[in-house]
Amino acid sequence: MKTAKRNAIWLDELSTCEAKEAADIGTVVIFPVGSVEEHGRHLPLCTDSLQAEYIAVEVANKTRCLVAPPLRHGICNAGHNFPGTISIGFDTVFAVARDVLSELTRNGFCRIIVLSGHAGSSHITALKLAAQEAVKRKQDAGKRKTRIMVLSDYDFAYELKDKLSFDKNDGHAGAIETSRVMAIRPDLIKAKGEASFPSMPRFEIVADPERYFPSGVNGDPTQATHTKGKEINEYVIEQLTKLVDELKG
Amino acid sequence: MKTAKRNAIWLDELSTCEAKEAADIGTVVIFPVGSVEEHGRHLPLCTDSLQAEYIAVEVANKTRCLVAPPLRHGICNAGHNFPGTISIGFDTVFAVARDVLSELTRNGFCRIIVLSGHAGSSHITALKLAAQEAVKRKQDAGKRKTRIMVLSDYDFAYELKDKLSFDKNDGHAGAIETSRVMAIRPDLIKAKGEASFPSMPRFEIVADPERYFPSGVNGDPTQATHTKGKEINEYVIEQLTKLVDELKG
Amino acid sequence: MKTAKRNAIWLDELSTCEAKEAADIGTVVIFPVGSVEEHGRHLPLCTDSLQAEYIAVEVANKTRCLVAPPLRHGICNAGHNFPGTISIGFDTVFAVARDVLSELTRNGFCRIIVLSGHAGSSHITALKLAAQEAVKRKQDAGKRKTRIMVLSDYDFAYELKDKLSFDKNDGHAGAIETSRVMAIRPDLIKAKGEASFPSMPRFEIVADPERYFPSGVNGDPTQATHTKGKEINEYVIEQLTKLVDELKG
Amino acid sequence: MKTAKRNAIWLDELSTCEAKEAADIGTVVIFPVGSVEEHGRHLPLCTDSLQAEYIAVEVANKTRCLVAPPLRHGICNAGHNFPGTISIGFDTVFAVARDVLSELTRNGFCRIIVLSGHAGSSHITALKLAAQEAVKRKQDAGKRKTRIMVLSDYDFAYELKDKLSFDKNDGHAGAIETSRVMAIRPDLIKAKGEASFPSMPRFEIVADPERYFPSGVNGDPTQATHTKGKEINEYVIEQLTKLVDELKG
Amino acid sequence: MKTAKRNAIWLDELSTCEAKEAADIGTVVIFPVGSVEEHGRHLPLCTDSLQAEYIAVEVANKTRCLVAPPLRHGICNAGHNFPGTISIGFDTVFAVARDVLSELTRNGFCRIIVLSGHAGSSHITALKLAAQEAVKRKQDAGKRKTRIMVLSDYDFAYELKDKLSFDKNDGHAGAIETSRVMAIRPDLIKAKGEASFPSMPRFEIVADPERYFPSGVNGDPTQATHTKGKEINEYVIEQLTKLVDELKG
Amino acid sequence: MKTAKRNAIWLDELSTCEAKEAADIGTVVIFPVGSVEEHGRHLPLCTDSLQAEYIAVEVANKTRCLVAPPLRHGICNAGHNFPGTISIGFDTVFAVARDVLSELTRNGFCRIIVLSGHAGSSHITALKLAAQEAVKRKQDAGKRKTRIMVLSDYDFAYELKDKLSFDKNDGHAGAIETSRVMAIRPDLIKAKGEASFPSMPRFEIVADPERYFPSGVNGDPTQATHTKGKEINEYVIEQLTKLVDELKG
Repeated sequence: MKTAKRNAIWLDELSTCEAKEAADIGTVVIFPVGSVEEHGRHLPLCTDSLQAEYIAVEVANKTRCLVAPPLRHGICNAGHNFPGTISIGFDTVFAVARDVLSELTRNGFCRIIVLSGHAGSSHITALKLAAQEAVKRKQDAGKRKTRIMVLSDYDFAYELKDKLSFDKNDGHAGAIETSRVMAIRPDLIKAKGEASFPSMPRFEIVADPERYFPSGVNGDPTQATHTKGKEINEYVIEQLTKLVDELKG
Repeated sequence: MKTAKRNAIWLDELSTCEAKEAADIGTVVIFPVGSVEEHGRHLPLCTDSLQAEYIAVEVANKTRCLVAPPLRHGICNAGHNFPGTISIGFDTVFAVARDVLSELTRNGFCRIIVLSGHAGSSHITALKLAAQEAVKRKQDAGKRKTRIMVLSDYDFAYELKDKLSFDKNDGHAGAIETSRVMAIRPDLIKAKGEASFPSMPRFEIVADPERYFPSGVNGDPTQATHTKGKEINEYVIEQLTKLVDELKG
Repeated sequence: MKTAKRNAIWLDELSTCEAKEAADIGTVVIFPVGSVEEHGRHLPLCTDSLQAEYIAVEVANKTRCLVAPPLRHGICNAGHNFPGTISIGFDTVFAVARDVLSELTRNGFCRIIVLSGHAGSSHITALKLAAQEAVKRKQDAGKRKTRIMVLSDYDFAYELKDKLSFDKNDGHAGAIETSRVMAIRPDLIKAKGEASFPSMPRFEIVADPERYFPSGVNGDPTQATHTKGKEINEYVIEQLTKLVDELKG
Repeated sequence: MKTAKRNAIWLDELSTCEAKEAADIGTVVIFPVGSVEEHGRHLPLCTDSLQAEYIAVEVANKTRCLVAPPLRHGICNAGHNFPGTISIGFDTVFAVARDVLSELTRNGFCRIIVLSGHAGSSHITALKLAAQEAVKRKQDAGKRKTRIMVLSDYDFAYELKDKLSFDKNDGHAGAIETSRVMAIRPDLIKAKGEASFPSMPRFEIVADPERYFPSGVNGDPTQATHTKGKEINEYVIEQLTKLVDELKG
Repeated sequence: MKTAKRNAIWLDELSTCEAKEAADIGTVVIFPVGSVEEHGRHLPLCTDSLQAEYIAVEVANKTRCLVAPPLRHGICNAGHNFPGTISIGFDTVFAVARDVLSELTRNGFCRIIVLSGHAGSSHITALKLAAQEAVKRKQDAGKRKTRIMVLSDYDFAYELKDKLSFDKNDGHAGAIETSRVMAIRPDLIKAKGEASFPSMPRFEIVADPERYFPSGVNGDPTQATHTKGKEINEYVIEQLTKLVDELKG
Repeated sequence: MKTAKRNAIWLDELSTCEAKEAADIGTVVIFPVGSVEEHGRHLPLCTDSLQAEYIAVEVANKTRCLVAPPLRHGICNAGHNFPGTISIGFDTVFAVARDVLSELTRNGFCRIIVLSGHAGSSHITALKLAAQEAVKRKQDAGKRKTRIMVLSDYDFAYELKDKLSFDKNDGHAGAIETSRVMAIRPDLIKAKGEASFPSMPRFEIVADPERYFPSGVNGDPTQATHTKGKEINEYVIEQLTKLVDELKG
């Protein structure tokens, strides 16, 4: 991959000509996906979006990759019925991701990381099915092979639970998420947050998950600190950077 | 409508509790929709997105309405095959808009303006069909009636063509759009821009519209100025503000 | 294009062998699309269908093109809830048009005009999307290129408003439509018609458009005459004839 | 059912007010469905459409029922690959029928006969599934019950094979169809027609049915006469009239 | 076709390597489809499934073809509302059959018999449409041609009505079905069964077919015997064997 | 729950009357879902199906619940391209599960366990989305609440890895699966099996997963024994039994 001369980080801040140049030199693209979902009384609805976009921008700053305009809506399960949640359908998330990946590869951007700030299993499945459709299309001779990764930044963040002495069940709106938002957008911390380790039904599919999850929190946000958030984010950035480098090869 | 105490402009920067309060007092929501589409050599791909989002935020500042997280992708026709364009399907735009509107109304946000920075006719049709589905659902007794408007900020901007002595055919990436971007994000102006008034087939549906439209510009961007852009934006903000006030009533 | 020996105007009045001959010599096909929609107390529900089909047949008589069996149903917005309206879905209109265009081109009829008597914007969008799908399919070597036009006969008829001193807002069931039906099927004029210039919401999407539009008329049908209708129809026929000639080339 | 005062036979030749009156007095509606399909060298592509529409109009003349604007396209299997055939998809036929039946019942026309001139089994299945969806919708209290019949006029025509000494395998474009077209539209008889009793695979689904069916005829059209056609048509009209009477009750 | 060395009858009892060998030598595959539908007081809900699977296994024993894992659910019309019936949608049956046929042919199994124990017309249409899609796909050079048959074992069983002196209207849960179940799974005969020859509406599509069909039986199960069942099954096996042999050629 | 008098374990071996009785007394239903997927050289393609069905039948024997006719096809990712695999689409699995669950609840069977022998994440997501749709439907007053669980028997089986000294990465076609098949259908063990711990890409979505997974095995089947298989199966049966008891309550 040649070195890009552009300043822009966001793909859609390029002009059409600049986009062509970026595609021609094999620039990696990160496509951030978020959600609008309750995250307790203390975190904003955009918690998932802002983490994925922050990481994507930081990695782009380090690696000269580009960040595609994000999808800010996702599929929410446990938080579906809470005020403020905007959960869009499985088929809808799949369709957006399929169309965006199809257009990116038409443009010649064929090394792509779909980075989701939201880690719900049906949400991730929708993104993976879209990526599968893109990589299964036959490659024309002489073109770069399409390579797509799909992951949540939480795949990395959770690796630090032990090191940071967080509860092994820490999850949604817990110590990790709260720490990370503290480090990224401290102005959006609304309250102190209270610990809550709800017990969701293991196998039952329920229409009212909020009954088992009234706080909307799974973890102990009181253990969150700005410093820990910075450490987590740096670790995630480092890991993503490796993936970008792998795709550049 | 009572007065909101919150500082946030973006709906998803609220917490779940704040979102509930905002819905309860009947807050109007603007849902900005953009596109990733070539806009000549001189404007960025996000030209449509940034105009709609800028207007939405300014109107929210004036009216205390909220701005929903945007949809940054749209349906592009004339610019479809240019490098950098990311055009998503008609059914995809419809599905996102339908799901977002459905969730906003579930939350009690039932006064909504869908504000598109992109004014392509199939794009606008997809948004209108989604709004139709939302308003046709029966209202429960005692609830506020759902009211949704769908428009492009260009519906207003074009009203100033005469006043600003712009060509009556000024359009995509022309004097108006260039002026507006100059006023909003001057750092994203890439080049001077060249006048071009392409003659597209009036009725024929073509697979390669770029053949008739090689510059990707329809208008004379050399007539654009920062001052004119500011005037246009202020006019659009003023008109949108009236619509928000109408919905509050 | 060689000269056709057949007498038939309607494509489906040909036998299979005659259809093959017509396709082989490059015959242009007009596919008329109508609607079943209220047109005030004075005009029949089939007003849109009969105009498009009349024009198509007249143009076929002049140019030796063929008229495909019509689609008699369309997407109605403003008139949706009136008695007698039969509005079919967006996806349904798209599907019929897509399938018919696909089969026409399979048959070798690759120069096609989709002529809609109904000019609603979602209706026209559905037809255009179907045409786009047809022209985007790759052409086999040695075959004629597929060329498809989509228009409403009202795109031409409205050009005569000034000349005929009709109100500039004359529209649905107004002076133009009434004049044209007078000239085509005077037996279907049910009543005198009354002027009405309803004020529809500019941007709001409403479930009950008939509330703003109780007469179902937008214009002044009292200004309609048989002579004016004949003049309009002749003008439309003349313009369509030029389009057929353009496609023959 | 009260007596209708109108003259029109075709539902869409009514005005909106006339349609309301017709629905209010419980008028039965026949919805004719045809096809565009090869019918040998001697019959036109519209053979199925013209029979169904002729019968519908005659029955309407006798019973004062209405004829809805027809669907002129159907699903063709054996004749799919012949020149001139325009076969639309299963889902497309279903969608049109579903939407038309839904709109007819919204209008209060709740006694309906779907009369198909084409008798292919997947075509009829699509129509029946659409009717099922319509009758399964719950009825509001006090409204007439929705009753829908789906049939091909060939369900009756074939009952006369013995009486007319036609071959028991007489079918597509054979003696019956040819006789009927002779009686309805003699100007569309293109040639004498030749007998052909092709042997189609009993169970195999083939991509090229025309290989087994090169003449596009299944029967002996040389036995057709105008007189026999008239007899068949009268019999079908008589049977349909009974069905309309049954629905009126 | 070379001789298979394997013992298994069921395709999915093979290992991946054994499946490859079976495909390589051109093994015919029978894909049995059943239903879960009421069959009177005397027969089990799985009556259709067990007949098709029994026949498939017997034919496989004689011909060394394979039996694909069955689809046990179908589309039920007349019996839809009875307790115990599990009727799945038209699109669902189509989708399963389409996907299974697509995967069988990807594996190189390109001679296939879809054998349905249920003979409802929309059920069979769904299976036929799926087969059509499979056979229409273009074949790569050098590969065996895909050949697919779709039938119900009742297409053969009904041929014996005269010989066995059964009523010509014998059908659902009648003498034939009862005899066959007696011969296959006598332990599942629940009761004696009572004769019933219901008169279903000839053309009307009804939401409550059980009203015309309260016994859920169409025929005279009291005439059923184990011996007759055996005779029918043997005849069906013999006919299917011929079809397998035809596909092997 | 009253005690059932019937002998049958399989729901579709009941008659319509017996099914009604079983639903009336609140019988729990297990719906087994399998797959047709390569499982190395040593295990059959039906490995997933047979485990789920075996467990379901054993649990039914102990608890007097019923087993619905299985879905024998699933969504295969890693094994998709291997010979013998029959992978059906995501939407297809969803549609079957949605329809079956909808019909079971229509019948009054409203306590259901969807037990999948295949544990792929998109496969499980499809089943969970179907269950979500079923539980979200509003309950009529006086009816039992619909309760549905979705799980793989591997959710339990994997809990024994430590106890049985199996590798913590043991998975597809490894020691657990091989042991279980040894205990259930020893005749289907084809070969000894060889250990293989393939390293799949952690995040990359690849079109050819078999490249990373040539053996089709993930684990060490040489550690499998009949005794261990029996122990695992008994444990799984015990756990499932508890779930059935929980749903009965």
